[in-house]
Amino acid sequence: QLIALMEPLHPADIADLLEQIEPGDRRRFVALYGREFDGDILSELDETIREEMIGLLSPQVLAEAVRDLDSDDVVDLLEDLDPEQRDAILGALGASDRAAVQQSLTYPEYSAGRLMQREVVMAPEHWTVGEAIDYLRASDDLPEQFYHIFLVDPKLRPVGKVALGKLMGSSRAVALRTIASDDFRIIPVLQDEGDVAYAFNQYHLISAPVVDETERLVGVITIDDAMAVLEEENEEDILRLAGVSEEASLSDTVLETLRGRATWLFVNLLTAIFASFVISLFSDTIDSMVALAVLMPIVASMGGNAGTQTMTVAVRSIATRDLTGSNALRIVRREIVVGALNGALFGFIMALVAGVWFGVPMLAVVIGSAMLLTQIAAAFGGIAIPLILERLKIDPALASGPFVTTVTDVVGFFAFLGLAAAVLL
Amino acid sequence: QLIALMEPLHPADIADLLEQIEPGDRRRFVALYGREFDGDILSELDETIREEMIGLLSPQVLAEAVRDLDSDDVVDLLEDLDPEQRDAILGALGASDRAAVQQSLTYPEYSAGRLMQREVVMAPEHWTVGEAIDYLRASDDLPEQFYHIFLVDPKLRPVGKVALGKLMGSSRAVALRTIASDDFRIIPVLQDEGDVAYAFNQYHLISAPVVDETERLVGVITIDDAMAVLEEENEEDILRLAGVSEEASLSDTVLETLRGRATWLFVNLLTAIFASFVISLFSDTIDSMVALAVLMPIVASMGGNAGTQTMTVAVRSIATRDLTGSNALRIVRREIVVGALNGALFGFIMALVAGVWFGVPMLAVVIGSAMLLTQIAAAFGGIAIPLILERLKIDPALASGPFVTTVTDVVGFFAFLGLAAAVLL
Ligand SMILES: [Mg+2]
Ligand SMILES: [Mg+2]
Ligand SMILES: [Mg+2]
Ligand SMILES: [Mg+2]
Ligand SMILES: [Mg+2]
Ligand SMILES: [Mg+2]
Ligand SMILES: [Mg+2]
Ligand SMILES: [Mg+2]
Ligand SMILES: [Mg+2]
Ligand SMILES: [Mg+2]
Ligand SMILES: [Mg+2]
Ligand SMILES: [Mg+2]
Ligand SMILES: [Mg+2]
Repeated sequence: QLIALMEPLHPADIADLLEQIEPGDRRRFVALYGREFDGDILSELDETIREEMIGLLSPQVLAEAVRDLDSDDVVDLLEDLDPEQRDAILGALGASDRAAVQQSLTYPEYSAGRLMQREVVMAPEHWTVGEAIDYLRASDDLPEQFYHIFLVDPKLRPVGKVALGKLMGSSRAVALRTIASDDFRIIPVLQDEGDVAYAFNQYHLISAPVVDETERLVGVITIDDAMAVLEEENEEDILRLAGVSEEASLSDTVLETLRGRATWLFVNLLTAIFASFVISLFSDTIDSMVALAVLMPIVASMGGNAGTQTMTVAVRSIATRDLTGSNALRIVRREIVVGALNGALFGFIMALVAGVWFGVPMLAVVIGSAMLLTQIAAAFGGIAIPLILERLKIDPALASGPFVTTVTDVVGFFAFLGLAAAVLL
Repeated sequence: QLIALMEPLHPADIADLLEQIEPGDRRRFVALYGREFDGDILSELDETIREEMIGLLSPQVLAEAVRDLDSDDVVDLLEDLDPEQRDAILGALGASDRAAVQQSLTYPEYSAGRLMQREVVMAPEHWTVGEAIDYLRASDDLPEQFYHIFLVDPKLRPVGKVALGKLMGSSRAVALRTIASDDFRIIPVLQDEGDVAYAFNQYHLISAPVVDETERLVGVITIDDAMAVLEEENEEDILRLAGVSEEASLSDTVLETLRGRATWLFVNLLTAIFASFVISLFSDTIDSMVALAVLMPIVASMGGNAGTQTMTVAVRSIATRDLTGSNALRIVRREIVVGALNGALFGFIMALVAGVWFGVPMLAVVIGSAMLLTQIAAAFGGIAIPLILERLKIDPALASGPFVTTVTDVVGFFAFLGLAAAVLL
């Protein structure tokens, strides 16, 4: 019954379903679904749930499930497993598949070598369309999906690619070389997967050849896997910007979730205490005018928000490579001008509000000026800090937040309370 | 010289270059590069810069540039132009291309109909591999790139798709029907582009047929365009979460940038003033113990950060469809438990810090309890508000921030100052 119910579902949907149910239900699912369990379901699962499921499956079912997978999916399964589980799966593969997978695993994590599949369709550069078609018809282990034939020289170095559509549309006598795509990009096996995903998105690649250190063709990366990496990079940035561990997943337990959040909150506690220390320097000032305590969070909050806006735009633009050395100066200038204008605008509004609320004209002047200063500092910090971190090879999505918050809080409290101390007392 | 320099560059890279230089330099570029200007460069440009460039190009160059584009790229160019520019480009197209583009433009913005290209390769469902190959060889206007042949019934309704790789690997006598992909998904022409992108990513689609209201095949969407939409949706969420207009671009002028930021800052000003009002209710309490003013931003800041963490995870999980009705309750429960644990942990730390700093034991108890309450409220608000907004069909990425901040600020100040008033005085 369960099997009939699952029948029309795509493995990716079954995986999502498994992610959303409780661990106990997953165990029951495996018991019932058992031998029908498809390798593709494993590939689609979140890493945490995947490990759990691999533990639940019987070795035979697991071996059966893995045998149908492309080598890139097997590599993706294996890389996060502990050695025994890994050996169990490797043992289930045929000798040549096993060798291919083990070779891929020697490349560093997050490299093109881990992302590529070893099943490549290639042809000598001097072949004709007819020869290629005959070869394809004769071979019995073509990959499930492929979209280009890669042309290689005698040393197996890729020299071009022919789109299958072009191949189909040409008569048998045409030389492959003459219908090769003019836009041909080769990916080094050690390239970072993020750069691979960028290239696919930027150049509308559908598949691209991967070469090893000797420039020999060793695999192919397809766009669906590049798209998944792009999504992961986005996920990472969104979560890191919010101070959440990028490995966080909805299926995490309470303790895992807590761990993914507490680090950031702890850093934030330190910066908040530092900001409080700044406030404490002006205890006497506040003591003699409690309106300052009432208004000071507004200055800090507006600064924090403006800083976050600028920082997010900067982090995102660095990730999409729109913000580069060549336009950085112009953008920094623009952000500071925008910050000054925002500061003038909201400083003016806030001056009016404070003036009417507390009836102290000098307090209006103080909060207006403090907001202007804080907004400029927020703009400058928001753009400069990610750029500096990037230069230092620290992920700006991860580390910008605490610095920007510290800048806006400290400048905000210092400007507001300092001006108040100077002018009002 | 400029032309020689640009020669090895991909249109997408030339577009990025144009985006990064100053408007004056863009004008000079067009004057020099002139007739070499490729339609693909226009497609790759940001919308703001694109409009500027179209204004700069001579009508002949523009007509030439647009003629080579696939219909989906022409549609993408046209949809953001004003009527005169639009008519100029339409006039440059052949009659059948023009009709196809105009038809696409009748579909709503952000629909599959806008995303699809009209150039489709289809075959009657009863054909054999040989018939398909002969047909492809004979036709002289195949699309630049295609990866599947769609099988259609006599009413032109798609009934299956054959991957070109499968076609190439089969002998001429094989019926197309027998080598059709078992995983076949049809996209309705009115489907939202975000849902289209989700389907491509979820099901590893490379191309998918688009059907109109009568289920007739009207076009095809390819994964590279779906990938671009997915990137846009991510961009939109990242920017909206930070309170930046999703149309913001690095090439915006100061005024455009200001407009994209000020709305959010204004909303934040209102919530900050509201929080200040809460503080002002406790003016007397603060007046009698200035340490409260020093410490209260810590409570609010920790609450705001925890709320943002939970909110971001919630917004992201809703976007990726990992957070659904079926697991919402479990996740809400988890977040509240995590919030309580965070509150207990950081409340305890902060109680120690405050106790040592100010030497008032009751102050330590007050700040510890206030932090516990605020963290729980932050967790609940962070997950409940996005879920409620989603239910109300309001984009949670856009609107959650102000609500969550208000909750954490108000609860934070109320809890801390209220407890202080009750206990300390
Ligand atoms: Mg999934
Ligand atoms: Mg992996
Ligand atoms: Mg990465
Ligand atoms: Mg793959
Ligand atoms: Mg990153
Ligand atoms: Mg760009
Ligand atoms: Mg670009
Ligand atoms: Mg397009
Ligand atoms: Mg568009
Ligand atoms: Mg959209
Ligand atoms: Mg296209
Ligand atoms: Mg959205
Ligand atoms: Mg999912």
